[in-house]
Order: sequence, then C-alpha cells, then structure tokens
Amino acid sequence: MSNNDLKSTLLHYQQRNNEQLGLWIDALGNTDQSLIKAMKYGTLMGGKRVRPYLTYVTGQLFGMADDALDTPAAAVECIHAYSLIHDDLPAMDDDSLRRGQATCHIAFDEANAILAGDALQTLAFSILADGKLSTEGDTYRIHMVKELATASGAMGMCLGQALDLAAEGRQVDLTALETIHRNKTGALIRCAVRLGAYAAGNKGVACLTQLDTFSNAIGLAFQVQDDILDIISDTETLGKPQGSDLAAEKSTYPALLGLEGAQEKAALLYQEALQALHAIPYNTEQLELFARYIIERNN
Amino acid sequence: MSNNDLKSTLLHYQQRNNEQLGLWIDALGNTDQSLIKAMKYGTLMGGKRVRPYLTYVTGQLFGMADDALDTPAAAVECIHAYSLIHDDLPAMDDDSLRRGQATCHIAFDEANAILAGDALQTLAFSILADGKLSTEGDTYRIHMVKELATASGAMGMCLGQALDLAAEGRQVDLTALETIHRNKTGALIRCAVRLGAYAAGNKGVACLTQLDTFSNAIGLAFQVQDDILDIISDTETLGKPQGSDLAAEKSTYPALLGLEGAQEKAALLYQEALQALHAIPYNTEQLELFARYIIERNN
Repeated sequence: MSNNDLKSTLLHYQQRNNEQLGLWIDALGNTDQSLIKAMKYGTLMGGKRVRPYLTYVTGQLFGMADDALDTPAAAVECIHAYSLIHDDLPAMDDDSLRRGQATCHIAFDEANAILAGDALQTLAFSILADGKLSTEGDTYRIHMVKELATASGAMGMCLGQALDLAAEGRQVDLTALETIHRNKTGALIRCAVRLGAYAAGNKGVACLTQLDTFSNAIGLAFQVQDDILDIISDTETLGKPQGSDLAAEKSTYPALLGLEGAQEKAALLYQEALQALHAIPYNTEQLELFARYIIERNN
Repeated sequence: MSNNDLKSTLLHYQQRNNEQLGLWIDALGNTDQSLIKAMKYGTLMGGKRVRPYLTYVTGQLFGMADDALDTPAAAVECIHAYSLIHDDLPAMDDDSLRRGQATCHIAFDEANAILAGDALQTLAFSILADGKLSTEGDTYRIHMVKELATASGAMGMCLGQALDLAAEGRQVDLTALETIHRNKTGALIRCAVRLGAYAAGNKGVACLTQLDTFSNAIGLAFQVQDDILDIISDTETLGKPQGSDLAAEKSTYPALLGLEGAQEKAALLYQEALQALHAIPYNTEQLELFARYIIERNN
C-alpha cells in the first residue's frame, strides 16, 4: 500500500466523518438557530480528520466494519472541533483564521462560539451514549464515555491547554514541553485509537497496551513534526504563517534540541510506534502508513 | 414536616454535594494549577444546590440511600456550575459578581474561566461514567449519560442560553419566553429529577412521566417566581440588584401577564406539580415541600 492509498483512505474517512457529523448536528433540530449554525460551521469547516481516521483504522484492525465505528469517530471529532473553537477565542489564542477561513467567533460572535463549543462537547457524549455500536462494542460503551472524558478534561486536553497558556512567553524545559503536548494533543489522539479498540470489543481491548505505546509515540511525533514544519516549511504549504512559533517565542522541540535533534526525535518516535505495532497480531499496515505520514508530512 | 425541615434538608444535601464535588476535583490532581483552582472556585463558591437536592430527594422516594445518589447529584451540579461560569463571561452576560463574590473570570482570567467551565462539563460525564451507583442504578448508567447530555446541550440548556441572548433587548411573547426557560433552566431541573429516578432503577423509571410533569411545572414556577421577586423584593434579600430585569428591558412573566397574572401562573404551576406528585405511589412529602418553597421563597 502506498502513500496514495493512505491519502485516499484519509479522504474516505474524512468524508464519512463529515456526513456523520452533519447528520448528528441536523438531528438537533433548530437548524435556523445561530447556535446550531455555529456548531456546524466550527465542525465542518475543514480539517484532516486525523482522530476519526485513527478510530476507524484501529477498529478495522480487529475486523470491524465502518458502521460499527461511526459513533466513536464522530464523538472524538466533536471534542476536537469544540476545542479548536474555544482555543481560537480572543481570551485564549486569539486567532481569526483557521484553515484559511474565519474562526467561529469571527464568523458568528464570541457568545455563539462559546456556546457552540460547549454544545459540541455535550454532543460528543450524546453520540457515545446514543449512537450505533456493534454488539461487541456495546459492552464497552460506558468505558468509551469514561475514556473520552478522561482524555478531554482536566486530566487531559483542557489541562494541556491550561499548561500551554501558562507557558506562553517563557521557555520551558523538555519535560514540561512533553507534558503540555501529551495532554493538549496526545491524550485525544490516544483516546481516538482506544475508542476504535473498545468498539471492537474484547479483541481490541486485549491490545490496548501496544496501541497506547503506538499512539503516545505518534501523538508526540505529530507535535515534533509540527514544530519542525514551522521552521522548514513555507506559509502557503502550512496554511498558517511560517515561523509563527519563533515569533511568539514559543517553546518548541527545535528550540530545545536544535533542528537536527528534533528530526532525530521524530525518527525515534516513529520507530517506537512501529515496534508497538509489530507486537499486535493483526494487519497494522494502515497504522504504519499513518505513522510514516506523521513524520513525512509537509503541512 | 415544616419549612424548617426543608431548609435543614437543603443544607444537608448542600454540604454533602460540596464534599463530593471537592473530592472529585481533588482527584483530578494538579491542585496547584490555576485550571483546577478555577474549577474549584466556580463550583464551591456557594449556591443552594437545588439540582442535587432534587436528585437526592427523588431517589429517596424510591428508598435509595444517599450514597447511591451522590454520583448523579454531583454530575448535574458540575453541569450547572460550568454553565454559570460561562454565562458570566464578558461575551455572554458579562457579570462580575455572583452570590456576592467575584465571578470566575474576574477571580482568575477569561482563559481559565473558559477552560474551567469546559473541564467541569467533562467532569460531569466522568463522574457519571465512573462514580458509585447502586446495582439497580448501574443498569441505567448509560441512560443517565444520555439524559444529562440531552438536557445540557443544543437541545436543552445551551439552546436556552442562545435563545435568551438572541432575545436580549427585544420583547418576546409568552410562548417564546416559555421556550427559553424550559430550555435554559427547565431542562436541567427535569434532568436532576430524572437522574434520581434512574439511580433507583426500575422503580424510579416507572414514575418518570409523573416526575416529568412535576419538574416541568416547578422548573417554570422557579423562573416565574424569579421574575416576580425582581419586582417585589429588595436588593439585599435578592443578593443581586432589584429591578435589574426591568432595567435590562428583559421579557418577564410580570411584564407579559402583569404582577397578579404572574402570581396566578406560579400558583397554577404549583398545583400542577402537586397533582403530578399525588399520582406517585410513594411518600412525596419532600418534593411537595420543595414545590411550595419554590413559589414562596423570597430570594
């Protein structure tokens, strides 16, 4: 399977996830309300859908069909979408553009953006509680709720964002930087993989340890590569200003390790991810491709 | 049982709920982090704990012990606490005081207040997924997640807040006003009662229809009485400026029905609540007292 296959698989699940999210949001009713419009805008304005992709291909490992994975994939993306809307707010990162489009609070207003984020978080849990699962997956439904909450809240993503804000304008060491990223982005990536495993029932749960090692490694590699791209890529390819980390005096891996050191770290994390996959007695090709994509991508 | 008994019962559950919430927040770790401090501040800065009270006394109806009800009571209060933190934000109601103290974004900052609200919503679902329940209640755990999500999100509380913001500065009719309140405050009050019933298992679930009628009535009566108090009470008793609804040109029941009409409406809703309780074959005295308290309270 080539990188082209990875891209077409990514695109396939991106479209599938978008359709699912659209259905869930439409089912809320009141589609003429600005709250619902803001939720839809913030969710469907683009994005690679890396987290849903991970949920789908992890579930597939264990032989699950796509429709047995739609529920956790949609739930995890709702959490990601809400976090982006709130992170972009003036009081947080104060970004007016995301993926080349106006951020939610610019396209609507701050009140609607706050509420849309709030309601998207709620929707994630609605989806997990109510969405279709296979018989095997259904026995782990409450575990999925627990996983998603743990990954999103004050022991995961929200903590990461708080630590990141607190670190603004000052240099932090490698351990602190890793703690930020493991929480801010790593926790939800790991959760996306875990939800795919839970959706497959006992078979998937038996591989959680290896999957965790894999996703911890790629979660961090994703961030290291992001930091590298901020230096070596250009604004057009990135879709955001090149050099913005430097300009914001952000702590990054290249700043702490040098560019080469950061590239070595990404390569090591890639190897770690592959090793974890090799210990899984199923065909992990898609996840392997994805790990390579993480460290080879240019945007 | 007298009104004094009601007050001591309210106080008892207020303290119990505070202890529970404190334990859940402490269990998140990182207690020196501003995020965790802001969560604790926003949750434990006071409040009558009406929703947890309703969860506890509803569960008691069916013979449940307090410790079988701690979980849903804590979860529902986390949602309420998060909603207050976010409602107070500058982009929303822009309030700097609540219960006589600085609101969360004043005591901390906006970023921490947004994140604390976000993480408190997450905590609500963590608690429901993870907290202790009785054997009977445990079979309804996922139903509780679904109920709480439905009541909190874009089909409930968040919708109500969006409708309320959209109605600011213009007069709405009685139907629109009722839609706002049924969503903004009614949905979570009904949910608090429902969670108490679910926690009691089949016995409680068998009475959901009557309990819904009860809680819809008291939820609305609560708001009607709020509007009445804004006119007839004084600032010191209210703990907030008397006449603030009038000043903000808010649509209220007295504005639409006249003061006497609003008082009649509250009395009718009280009767409706009592009737619903009479159809329940258990001792509903606590809920009856509470219904009376709703329309007789002066703050």
